[in-house]
Amino acid sequence: MFCRVVRQPSLAILVRNVASIASQEPAGPSVKSKIPGPTSMALKQKMDPLHQTTSVRLYVDYEKSFGNYMVDADGNTFLDIYTQISSLPLGYNHPDLVNAARNPEFITSLVSRPALGSFPRQDFPEGLAKALTSIAPKGLKAVQTMLCGTSANENAIKQAFIWYMTKRRGGNPPDEAALASCMLQKQPGTPKLSVLGFQGAFHGRSLCMLSVTRSKAIHKVDIPAFDWPIAKFPRYKYPLSSNQAYNDAQDKECLQDVQEKIDEWKRKDQDVAVIIVEPIQAEGGDNYGSPAFFQKLQKIAADNGICFIVDEVQTGGGATGDIWAHSHWGLSSPPDMVTFSKKLITGGYFYKEDFRVKEAYRIYNTWVGDPTKLFLLQKVIEVIRRDGLIEKTRSVGEVFQKELTRLQSVHSSKLSQARGLGTFAAVDFPTAAERDKLVEKAIALGLHCGGCG
Amino acid sequence: MFCRVVRQPSLAILVRNVASIASQEPAGPSVKSKIPGPTSMALKQKMDPLHQTTSVRLYVDYEKSFGNYMVDADGNTFLDIYTQISSLPLGYNHPDLVNAARNPEFITSLVSRPALGSFPRQDFPEGLAKALTSIAPKGLKAVQTMLCGTSANENAIKQAFIWYMTKRRGGNPPDEAALASCMLQKQPGTPKLSVLGFQGAFHGRSLCMLSVTRSKAIHKVDIPAFDWPIAKFPRYKYPLSSNQAYNDAQDKECLQDVQEKIDEWKRKDQDVAVIIVEPIQAEGGDNYGSPAFFQKLQKIAADNGICFIVDEVQTGGGATGDIWAHSHWGLSSPPDMVTFSKKLITGGYFYKEDFRVKEAYRIYNTWVGDPTKLFLLQKVIEVIRRDGLIEKTRSVGEVFQKELTRLQSVHSSKLSQARGLGTFAAVDFPTAAERDKLVEKAIALGLHCGGCG
Repeated sequence: MFCRVVRQPSLAILVRNVASIASQEPAGPSVKSKIPGPTSMALKQKMDPLHQTTSVRLYVDYEKSFGNYMVDADGNTFLDIYTQISSLPLGYNHPDLVNAARNPEFITSLVSRPALGSFPRQDFPEGLAKALTSIAPKGLKAVQTMLCGTSANENAIKQAFIWYMTKRRGGNPPDEAALASCMLQKQPGTPKLSVLGFQGAFHGRSLCMLSVTRSKAIHKVDIPAFDWPIAKFPRYKYPLSSNQAYNDAQDKECLQDVQEKIDEWKRKDQDVAVIIVEPIQAEGGDNYGSPAFFQKLQKIAADNGICFIVDEVQTGGGATGDIWAHSHWGLSSPPDMVTFSKKLITGGYFYKEDFRVKEAYRIYNTWVGDPTKLFLLQKVIEVIRRDGLIEKTRSVGEVFQKELTRLQSVHSSKLSQARGLGTFAAVDFPTAAERDKLVEKAIALGLHCGGCG
Repeated sequence: MFCRVVRQPSLAILVRNVASIASQEPAGPSVKSKIPGPTSMALKQKMDPLHQTTSVRLYVDYEKSFGNYMVDADGNTFLDIYTQISSLPLGYNHPDLVNAARNPEFITSLVSRPALGSFPRQDFPEGLAKALTSIAPKGLKAVQTMLCGTSANENAIKQAFIWYMTKRRGGNPPDEAALASCMLQKQPGTPKLSVLGFQGAFHGRSLCMLSVTRSKAIHKVDIPAFDWPIAKFPRYKYPLSSNQAYNDAQDKECLQDVQEKIDEWKRKDQDVAVIIVEPIQAEGGDNYGSPAFFQKLQKIAADNGICFIVDEVQTGGGATGDIWAHSHWGLSSPPDMVTFSKKLITGGYFYKEDFRVKEAYRIYNTWVGDPTKLFLLQKVIEVIRRDGLIEKTRSVGEVFQKELTRLQSVHSSKLSQARGLGTFAAVDFPTAAERDKLVEKAIALGLHCGGCG
């Protein structure tokens, strides 16, 4: 049973050093009521006839939340090391973001929202360069903005399918046969291609993305899916240094499974066109792959003419000690595509020039993103650079993981498998029930964290 | 060949009456350069290495755009009767929205974005009531917010699948067999259900939604799809009053096709769980169904135990002379679900209480919408009511359609099939080339409109 209790204090935990936040930030956690408190309970009851409330945990007083601290509707103050759902890059009400949001161009972009794909703002090229090109993964340049992680992954996959079929046509655009048959959903226009994912993966909740998601049954049950292959993902023993033989064998077994699945789906005439993988399976239990695993996986993709997509929706943004978790792998060439969202505020993906779609309106929708999110991201990147937050994440991460390992040795009957990268860290409990008990206790004491796996 | 040249001046065209806009709104269109002009061309060249530009038509100077007028980066002024892509409810820089966006809670919700499904703002229940419950389709109350039209449709369909399978289990939640088998993507956990769409339909561009989209080949080609049924959609002759027998026969033929497809997919063991339909197939060529067609379609859905979803992503918001186009049908009970986005700023869907999902985290994602969009929508609804914009849309629509019919009779060799509802209107050209020529000419004269079909 993999259980995660602590993850991604991330950049947020570090901005305590910024004076302007420190002045408004609560001095520490303070819990006055049962969780959820009476005000949250009353709001839930009020909302229930209007909107599902089954997954609502707390109503938050965002006006009173600052820096690392989230204040709920009952006045309880939590140290939020989970940063919503890994989705706030600089904590609550960061003063630089609040100032930026008062700018007139911010307000205009909000109330006069462009259909970005056709009528972008005239400052959009500059915004792209400042916010996204400036943090592009090494070796990548072109980017496509989207609204969220799921739409980033879906569209990256669509772009890969288009690339795959264009290759099959010798570089030519869709011909008459393809255009006519796709309206009947017959081959060649509607191909029988597949995407290979991994056991334990989470890539989103649309029907396409659920077809390669294998983290929890409750996300998948009752929903039809594409018949796409799922390969084994390494499950290492920690500490890595004393389990090398076991872990190497894990890599080998999983990579062999990948090649077998590719061959099997080829025999079924459903070529694997895409391999999609997370650097750390977060939702699935904080499962890591070694640099060697990912290097070899990339090679398998290349050898089989498959697009290699790294899903950094949860890992991108700095928590691992780099903006991109895959930069720890030492790849000799970049992944074909890298998707992002959450902490990077706008969704989207970077892609290699070979994967560019030549025809208009194939990767398209009404909004294709949101310029207000791009403005926010520009400011976030500026603050990360100015305040050296990536470097701080590395040094805090080091301390944090040392302490987690120490804690594990003190409670060795309960805790195992302490692991992490930067401030992205986890430790296992013997059962889900024991994990949930700790999470509940932590929240009752004012530490907002989460379980996974 | 169905061709649309004019659509949805919508509410935007009406706010000219609001004095505060009129003062800033340009006096009329004025085009100084070729379209696209040199500044737009230069920006495109600058952006091309960073982001696809194939579908970019113009770069817009949103700071100078007011009311019904869009000003581009070259200083050309267009009367925008297309309101971006039917996605601006009150035109450009509406003063009430600009003022609202300066409010502190607006800024907080922007820079401290909640994971709405778990940690909503404490004013979220009230915001839902003001913005969405207040405009709920007659007979519906519960709503689910989402980010865009595609995610609204995908999640409505997921919710319908869950309802269908829960019904099959006699009202019970997923059992062990379902939970275990869905992780292997086998039955019963991963069912072989289908969604019935219509020829000419457009419901979005994810793999799921493309499987029931049949508007244009370029959207679908090279992308794998679910094997789901597509039924015929009426293609009426206009004016309706002199073509009743033909049009009634269209309804009959299409409804018969729906029942045949349901039976066929039942025999294939891929039960149709959902019928999804647009009130007006906008992208597909402004094709209408009669009230009788939709009444009978709803009955077929009910008789076969199928969820009936009306996709109002393009029609919702007021352009048809009502917030909801389906309210023109005189249904005796509401649709099971109604989806929306675009002019309603936030995506989402209303659903009947029977379709509520009981278990947590099944209809869920990190953001499940965006509170800033809900704040904006609150203000939009306020302005629509205060300024009587729905009523104005009706009266302007009447004039507009009379004039369109008159224009058609003057140019009867070129124009045919004038049709519309409110300010949502279209007329056909003999060929796509002739349509495109007119659209191009209109834009060169400063009238921003679009083609479809």
